[in-house]
Amino acid sequence: MEGRRQHWPSVGRVDEAQDVRTFIDSNADQWLAGLQEWLRIPSQSGDPALAGEVRRSAEWLATALREAGFPTVEVWETPGLPAVYAEWPADDAGAPVALVYGHHDVQPVEPLEQWTAPPYDPVVVDGRLLGRGAADDKGQVAMHLLGLRAHLAATGRSAPAATVKVLVEGEEESGSPHFVDLLRAQRERLRCDVVVVSDTGLWRADVPSTVIGLRGLVSCQLDLVARDVDLHSGSFGGAVLNPATALARMLATLHDESGHVAVPGFYDSVLEPGEEERAMTAALPYDEAQWLADAHSTVPAGEAGWSTLERVWVRPTAEVNGYWAGHTGAGTKTIIPREAHAKLSFRLVAAQEPDQVRAAVEAWAHAAAPAGATVTLTWEGDGVRPCATPLGTPALQALHRAMARAWGTDVLVTREGGSGPEADLQDVLEAPLVYLGVSLPDSREHAPNENVPVEMLLKGAESAAYFWSELAAQA
Amino acid sequence: MEGRRQHWPSVGRVDEAQDVRTFIDSNADQWLAGLQEWLRIPSQSGDPALAGEVRRSAEWLATALREAGFPTVEVWETPGLPAVYAEWPADDAGAPVALVYGHHDVQPVEPLEQWTAPPYDPVVVDGRLLGRGAADDKGQVAMHLLGLRAHLAATGRSAPAATVKVLVEGEEESGSPHFVDLLRAQRERLRCDVVVVSDTGLWRADVPSTVIGLRGLVSCQLDLVARDVDLHSGSFGGAVLNPATALARMLATLHDESGHVAVPGFYDSVLEPGEEERAMTAALPYDEAQWLADAHSTVPAGEAGWSTLERVWVRPTAEVNGYWAGHTGAGTKTIIPREAHAKLSFRLVAAQEPDQVRAAVEAWAHAAAPAGATVTLTWEGDGVRPCATPLGTPALQALHRAMARAWGTDVLVTREGGSGPEADLQDVLEAPLVYLGVSLPDSREHAPNENVPVEMLLKGAESAAYFWSELAAQA
Repeated sequence: MEGRRQHWPSVGRVDEAQDVRTFIDSNADQWLAGLQEWLRIPSQSGDPALAGEVRRSAEWLATALREAGFPTVEVWETPGLPAVYAEWPADDAGAPVALVYGHHDVQPVEPLEQWTAPPYDPVVVDGRLLGRGAADDKGQVAMHLLGLRAHLAATGRSAPAATVKVLVEGEEESGSPHFVDLLRAQRERLRCDVVVVSDTGLWRADVPSTVIGLRGLVSCQLDLVARDVDLHSGSFGGAVLNPATALARMLATLHDESGHVAVPGFYDSVLEPGEEERAMTAALPYDEAQWLADAHSTVPAGEAGWSTLERVWVRPTAEVNGYWAGHTGAGTKTIIPREAHAKLSFRLVAAQEPDQVRAAVEAWAHAAAPAGATVTLTWEGDGVRPCATPLGTPALQALHRAMARAWGTDVLVTREGGSGPEADLQDVLEAPLVYLGVSLPDSREHAPNENVPVEMLLKGAESAAYFWSELAAQA
Repeated sequence: MEGRRQHWPSVGRVDEAQDVRTFIDSNADQWLAGLQEWLRIPSQSGDPALAGEVRRSAEWLATALREAGFPTVEVWETPGLPAVYAEWPADDAGAPVALVYGHHDVQPVEPLEQWTAPPYDPVVVDGRLLGRGAADDKGQVAMHLLGLRAHLAATGRSAPAATVKVLVEGEEESGSPHFVDLLRAQRERLRCDVVVVSDTGLWRADVPSTVIGLRGLVSCQLDLVARDVDLHSGSFGGAVLNPATALARMLATLHDESGHVAVPGFYDSVLEPGEEERAMTAALPYDEAQWLADAHSTVPAGEAGWSTLERVWVRPTAEVNGYWAGHTGAGTKTIIPREAHAKLSFRLVAAQEPDQVRAAVEAWAHAAAPAGATVTLTWEGDGVRPCATPLGTPALQALHRAMARAWGTDVLVTREGGSGPEADLQDVLEAPLVYLGVSLPDSREHAPNENVPVEMLLKGAESAAYFWSELAAQA
C-alpha cells in the first residue's frame, strides 16, 4: 500500500510561477492511484460486518491528510463509526477559516450483477472513474488534497492562504446518526467562516454550478379516530362519521386548486428567489421531457406560477407519504373503519422554521377535523431547517470566481430538494454553506456503476486551489 | 330423542272452535322441548369439523316437518351443507302459495366464557330462551310448525288455507355460498306468490313491526397508479403528481357538503319513501342517544334532510371501507407513493340496479382521476339488488292484520341497512317478500347469550297461524 501513496512534491522545490493546472496535470496519475487505493476499502456504514472497513477507510484518509501536509490530523470517535478531522492554519492569523465537509463511508453495492466492473476494484473507463465512492464521496474529498497541494505549489506558500479545516464523517450514508452530537461537542475546534460542502453535483460537465439551497423537512403521523370498533356498513352506513372519508376530505384541503399549500400561515416566512436567481435557473439548459422521464411521470404537476425546477428547489411542499384505514386486504369487507391514519411530510425553504410549520399544520389539522373524531399529530424528530446561501454571500462569490477560472465559463446556481447533514453544519456552526461538488447527473450515486469523470475531479481540485486564494484575497 | 318429539294433536280431535291462542298455549311446553332438542345440535356452518352436526340439524328438521304433517319433506343437497324443503298444498288448487324462508345453521359461540349458560344446552331464564340459534334462526323456523298446527286446529282444516312451502338453508351464517344456485335449480318447485322471511326482528316486544326493505350492495377496489416506482419526496416533491393526495381528493368528492353522494346519476332510480312510511318511521319509539351509543359514536352524521333511521334504511350510501398508499409503517419515509388504493362500497335502495350504480361510479372515477395517473375499478361479484315491499302489497297487509291480532296493536314498519339471501329470493322467485320475524334488539344474535323471549316466539306462531287464513281470504 505504501507504494501507492502520494509523494507530494515539496513546496520548496516547485517553481512558484507554476500554475495550478500544470501542477494538477503532472500529479494527477499518482493522486488517482491513491484515490483508487482508498476506493478499494469497502467502507459501507450500513453493514455492521464492514465496520472495520469504515475504520480502515478513516485511517487511510488520516494518513493521506498527514502526507498532504496537514499538521493536525485526528480520527474522531463517535458512538458509531469514526470521522476524520484535519486542520492546516494559515500563516496569517487573520485569514479566513474554512471547513471542508465530506464523508468517507459509502452505499451498499447490490445488485452486484449490474456493475460492469467490480465496485471495489475501481477502473477508469472512457475517462470516467468507476467504482463505489468515486463520486459519493471519496473522490470529492480526495480532490481537496490535490487542490490544496496545487494551491501551495502555485503560490509558493508553505501554508494555505486560508485556514483549512477538514471534517469527513463515516456515517453519512446511514443518516449521520451521531453527526450533530459530534458537531456540538467539537464546535469550538470546528469554528469557521464558511463551510465548503463537497458532496453534491454539477448541472452538467460544461455547465458548472453550485448549490445555494436545500429544503428542510418536518414530518408527522396524523391519526383520526372516530370510535373504538369498526362498524357494519349495512347497519350503520350513512348515519355515522366515516373517519376514512373524513381524513380523505382533510387531505384534500392540504392544497388549493392551484397546487398552493392551503395550510394557513404555511408560507409566512418563505423567502422567494430574487430575479437574479430566477434568471440563473431559467438559464440552465433543461429538458423537461428528460426530467419527467427521470421522475417516471408523464405530466408535470404542482404549484401554479413556478417552473418544475423551482417547484422542487425554492418552493415548500406538503406531501402525503402514505395512509391507511380499514380494510386493505383482498375482496370486500363492508365496514365503516374505526380510524384512519396518514403520514405527512413538509419540505421547507428559507426562512421557514420547523417549529412554525408544525404549529401551522397542527392548527390546520384541528380546524379541519370533523365533529365526532379526535385528531392527533405525532411529529418525527426535530425536523430539518432549510439551508440557503444568498447570492451576495462573499464566500459564494469567491467560489464562483474560482470555478469560473477552472471551467472558463460563468457559474450558475442550483438547489436541491432535500437535505442531509448540511442543515446540522449550518445550525451548529452558524456559518454560510457553499457547495463545491463535481458529480454529474449520470454519476449513479447509490446505484450500480457509480462513476465520475476524472476531469471533473481535476477541475474540482483546480477550483479548490483557486478558492483558497480567492477567499483570502476577499477577506 | 324420540321421547322429546312433538306429538301434535290430530286435527280431527280438536274442537274446531278452539282458537289459535288456546292451541298454542296448550302445546307450547311440548313444542318448546322439541325446539330445545334442536338447539342442542351445534350446527355451525362455518366450522368444517361440525358439518356432520349441520346435517344432523337438517335431518332433525325434516323429521319435525313430517311429524307436523307436511306430506312432502326433502333434504336438499348442495355442494356445501344441506337445506330442508317441505310442502303442504292447500286443498284449493287456486289458493295462494307462500314460501317460508329460514336457516338451520348457526354462528360460532366463542367467547364461551361470556355465556351465562352453555350455548348448546338451552334454558329458559326469566321467560327468555337462551342458547345459540334461539333467535337466529331455529326458534323462528320452529314457530312456523306451531303456528301451522294452530291454524289447522283453529280452522278445523286438514290442509292449510294457503299452500305452504318451507325452505330452510344450512349455510346462511357462511354467506349462503350455494343458495342462489339452489334457488335457480329448484325454481319451479319453489314457485310462490309471496316469500315469508322469518329471520329478522321486531322493533320492540310491544311495538310489532315488519321489515319492508333491505339495502343492496355493490363494492369495488379503486386503484390509482401514477408510476412504477416510489419517488424521493426531496428530489421530486412539489413537481409530480402524488397519487395518495390525488386519491384523497377523489374520495373527498364522493359526497357534497350536505352529505349527498355526489356521483352523477347515483340517485336516478331511488324511490323515496312515501308519506305513510315516513310517518310510520317517525312513530317508532326511538332513542337517538341509545342508537349513537350502539354505534360507538358521539354525533350523528350523514345526508341532510333525513333522520338517522332513514339514513340507514331508505337512503343509498357511498362508503370508504378502507384505503392504503405508500408508507404505513413506523417513522418517516419521505416518498411520493407510486400508487394509492381504496375499497369502496355502495349501499343501494330500490330501485337502484347494481349495473347502473357501477356504471355511474365508473364514470365518476374516470372523470375525477387526475392527469398522469390511471384509475382502475375492480368490482366484487355481481352485487346485491335492494329489496323493497311497497306498503300496499296485499300479502304485507295480510301479515300486518295477522300480527295485529296476535299483539292487539297496530303494526309498524322498519327496514334493514344490509341484506343477505333475501335479495336472491326476490330475484330468482320474483315474488314479494314479507318478514315475520320476532327477535328483539337485545337478542344478541351472533354474540354470547343469544336469546329470545318465549312469548315472542309464541306470538310469532300465533301470527303465522292467522296469516294463512288472512292470505287465503284476501286471494
